[in-house]
Amino acid sequence: MSLQQQYEQICSRGLSLDMSRGKPGADVISLANGMLALPAEGDFKAANGFDCRNYGILDGLPEAKELFAPLHGINPDNIIIGGNSSLQMMYDTVARAMLVGVGEEGCCPWGALFGQGTAPRFLCPVPGYDRHFAICEAFGIEMLSIPTDENGPNMDAVEKAAADDENIKGIWCVPMYANPTGITYSDEVVRRLANMKTAAKDFRIFWDNAYGIHHLNSGRPTAEASGALRVVGQSPTSLAAEQDKLTNIFAECEIAGNPERVYGFASTSKMTFPGAGLAIMGASAKNAAFIREQMAFQTIGSDKLNQLRHLRFFGSFEGIVAHMAKIEEVLRPKFNAVIEILVRELGASGGEYGAWHSPKGGYFISFTGNANTAKRTVQLCKDAGVILTNAGATFPYGKDPDDANIRIAPTFPSLNELREAMEVFCVSVKLANV
Amino acid sequence: MSLQQQYEQICSRGLSLDMSRGKPGADVISLANGMLALPAEGDFKAANGFDCRNYGILDGLPEAKELFAPLHGINPDNIIIGGNSSLQMMYDTVARAMLVGVGEEGCCPWGALFGQGTAPRFLCPVPGYDRHFAICEAFGIEMLSIPTDENGPNMDAVEKAAADDENIKGIWCVPMYANPTGITYSDEVVRRLANMKTAAKDFRIFWDNAYGIHHLNSGRPTAEASGALRVVGQSPTSLAAEQDKLTNIFAECEIAGNPERVYGFASTSKMTFPGAGLAIMGASAKNAAFIREQMAFQTIGSDKLNQLRHLRFFGSFEGIVAHMAKIEEVLRPKFNAVIEILVRELGASGGEYGAWHSPKGGYFISFTGNANTAKRTVQLCKDAGVILTNAGATFPYGKDPDDANIRIAPTFPSLNELREAMEVFCVSVKLANV
Repeated sequence: MSLQQQYEQICSRGLSLDMSRGKPGADVISLANGMLALPAEGDFKAANGFDCRNYGILDGLPEAKELFAPLHGINPDNIIIGGNSSLQMMYDTVARAMLVGVGEEGCCPWGALFGQGTAPRFLCPVPGYDRHFAICEAFGIEMLSIPTDENGPNMDAVEKAAADDENIKGIWCVPMYANPTGITYSDEVVRRLANMKTAAKDFRIFWDNAYGIHHLNSGRPTAEASGALRVVGQSPTSLAAEQDKLTNIFAECEIAGNPERVYGFASTSKMTFPGAGLAIMGASAKNAAFIREQMAFQTIGSDKLNQLRHLRFFGSFEGIVAHMAKIEEVLRPKFNAVIEILVRELGASGGEYGAWHSPKGGYFISFTGNANTAKRTVQLCKDAGVILTNAGATFPYGKDPDDANIRIAPTFPSLNELREAMEVFCVSVKLANV
Repeated sequence: MSLQQQYEQICSRGLSLDMSRGKPGADVISLANGMLALPAEGDFKAANGFDCRNYGILDGLPEAKELFAPLHGINPDNIIIGGNSSLQMMYDTVARAMLVGVGEEGCCPWGALFGQGTAPRFLCPVPGYDRHFAICEAFGIEMLSIPTDENGPNMDAVEKAAADDENIKGIWCVPMYANPTGITYSDEVVRRLANMKTAAKDFRIFWDNAYGIHHLNSGRPTAEASGALRVVGQSPTSLAAEQDKLTNIFAECEIAGNPERVYGFASTSKMTFPGAGLAIMGASAKNAAFIREQMAFQTIGSDKLNQLRHLRFFGSFEGIVAHMAKIEEVLRPKFNAVIEILVRELGASGGEYGAWHSPKGGYFISFTGNANTAKRTVQLCKDAGVILTNAGATFPYGKDPDDANIRIAPTFPSLNELREAMEVFCVSVKLANV
């Protein structure tokens, strides 16, 4: 059967599958269903007796700050618990910086640069997270792409740009199990980010640690590891059985004498309920004080009952880790299936069609095909009923100069749907290469 | 016993009462305790089958928009459900206007005025809500005070300023049971606001309808009305037994040919849980489309489980009204007690010490004393253990030119505490007049 015939046969199936976003499926989300009835009638007091139903407590319950502090590896005092969206915390942090600055003496609000006929700029490691880039675009912040490899962003390029241009005010980073490449920044990259010279005194690293404890194959003994669920044997057709480790950038920035350089972001969106989780920011004491001061104009406080709900559900950080292990069990077979089918259909390590990284955690597999094939592949998939993230979305302004990168998001479909979708994907890749 | 002796006796009681903010007490909040265990395990789907646990639905569940649309009196399609804070929605709306404008063709972002050596300006009816003024202050928006009377802002002053100065971009309004005066804007004021000529094409009314259904004495037959709870007889020592009515400004703006002029804000903070309610914005179709477009950069959507929680608790708009009637029962005796003690201690309608309005709803009683007595009164109260809102807080920049206005917030303390606090207040007023 010719490629074209295979593709037409697939089209005739009338599929309707969505692999466009990093959404957990109902299988993962249902693991947190116990939260729906929490905290429980009559249970509304924080440990200090505070009535969580009422106004107050700007930056989060003390016990919630303590529970989630390990996500950033900092003192709970410098944690700020937000609403249900870490994206909103990042957007708001950039918006504040544009309007009032970042609290750095002698520095003007970033937005004031427009009045001087210039513009603030951000460094954007690519491929990266489209919603980060969209925030810059919304505010007119110019984006400079920085290439990445298996260690993170190319630090020579980052250091040169940051040192030369005082309009460069920040960098977007997903440092662990990166969106979409799945890689984790090396110790050296983290240290160079913490230590580098920046022309802008008010330069900030936006450290979006969205997948900090989102491992896929911790190597714990499981039903799957014993052969019950795993379809194909070992690497490269399955995930590497180990966890990545990320160096603590807050500690590195402090050692480097740049404690104010980093804002950390995390959330429970991919732990409990994506639409009803908690956003968790980490910062230096000085940054946290400035943020609180500005936040006080915006809100009286986030939803403390939802904080209580998470506290009751998790109990402790060990409870969080145990919950993440359950999620890992559900997600691992999906990622294994993607890699298995990529290897089977396109050849080990991508062969003539492209390359991918087999991630040890996170939410994505990044496929880099041959130049000028990504848009065509995504379109062919779409015509066959499989929606992928738009080609180009992983680059600033939606423009992949090579038209080569495609983000695969295996978490939402069921395992069977995923297998079908990946078959469509592989046929489409081949056809796009014709 | 001399005034001074009375005051010293009060001080010796060692009181510690907080009447500083418009917070409901546990008595009111507990009426919504049933919500704590909602929606319930296994109950997470919207009417259209959407999984409320997951990402998605930027501006609120269709049934939530429908439920709350009557608060603004507009088409549910133009309702935007936010997080737990209408203050945040207002702050965000101003922040967006500063950064990207309001979507009005040919108009620049308000913040761009700084680059031109000038500044955006807002009209601020006084006395007003301190957090509104704080938003302006946070962003460097200049504030112009507008005097108010029992009909709302002085419209001659508003019209003149809005017509003359194209840097005047907005006006803050709490149109019903205003914070702090308790008055409701007259039909004429609403119509003039909708119809007036504004030099700025991108002028916006920030219509903070925080107390739109927050009546205090609807005139329904109640235990209290029959004498069981009411301490003193009829007006002026108790609240007028009727509701205010507010003209629909969205309709008036549309009739006037200025449909984009108004942003409406409301919340369930003073219906269910102040810290875990829903913020509800209303706008014209064009405004709502622009806001959604910009919000999409900031968030994937608000907490839909909290929307479901409110839907399950209220059931219908009639359910909301019925719940508000329960709240009214708790709050009415508190407001009556304040007025009763003011009348008894200071004389009917304030006598030589000042004046107040007996509100038919809302959260505050505004006391306007003699010039140069407010700060002293608040300090005397504080020294006796009763915390009031800072004198001046109801004016832009915290400066009451007459030093006369004090906001009394009777909702948080218990009835007994409130009586004690009001005795302290009245003695302090007298002493401040000596």
